[in-house]
Amino acid sequence: MKKIVDADCIFCKIISGEIPSRTVYEDESYKAIMDVSPASRGHVIILPKNHAANIYEIPDGEAAGIMIVAKKIALAMKESLACDGINILQNNGEEAGQTVFHLHVHVIPRYDGDTVNIKWKQLENVDIDAACEEIKKAIK
Amino acid sequence: MKKIVDADCIFCKIISGEIPSRTVYEDESYKAIMDVSPASRGHVIILPKNHAANIYEIPDGEAAGIMIVAKKIALAMKESLACDGINILQNNGEEAGQTVFHLHVHVIPRYDGDTVNIKWKQLENVDIDAACEEIKKAIK
Repeated sequence: MKKIVDADCIFCKIISGEIPSRTVYEDESYKAIMDVSPASRGHVIILPKNHAANIYEIPDGEAAGIMIVAKKIALAMKESLACDGINILQNNGEEAGQTVFHLHVHVIPRYDGDTVNIKWKQLENVDIDAACEEIKKAIK
Repeated sequence: MKKIVDADCIFCKIISGEIPSRTVYEDESYKAIMDVSPASRGHVIILPKNHAANIYEIPDGEAAGIMIVAKKIALAMKESLACDGINILQNNGEEAGQTVFHLHVHVIPRYDGDTVNIKWKQLENVDIDAACEEIKKAIK
């Protein structure tokens, strides 16, 4: 099957094998590799093989399979690593922490006392009703 | 269609309507509502209607639809809110920040200078090859 490739994209080069990686799982549509800058021991990223920059651009059919692969990897981590939890994270845009502009999903094993920082304090003085209406109106 | 419900689960009660919520999107399988403790303005959570505690337990078919709903909501946020990015996050286990044990996916709009903290420093001195082999062997 023909794949959509961006010639300048480092993840497209990893998918093609031009840049080596440590693959934990691969099928027709996805490649899951070890993150070379891991947040914790066992940090994996899932790459859809067709290039899409982010969640806005990926076709529905390719978005769907991601969570099935994430489940497969999460179950394997739970069985093989002595991890206490797992975060599944997908960042869109530089402000959200995206650094490579080929959609990818982080599967991050969590350990008691690790240095991963994924949290927030509740935002006060926010008009939740207004935000709800704005989003609802824009749903297609 | 019959739904799987946990009588003690607050999200099951939200899905049934027993506990009110601000719904931004709903279909046969999912309900997306405003998070009442938002990390940022417009923070939404997606709830699969059938009760499953986490990614380990959810059936593949129900996991798949989540990213399609997340895409729908992300596109609506991008259009309606003046956000600079979006995080899509799913936490499994208390150590990973899960507080309600009915699988849910956070869709968090990000704004320049917001107080959301989703980051990590690279873990040093980790044997990535060994972790790769351990995970790979456990993939089913």
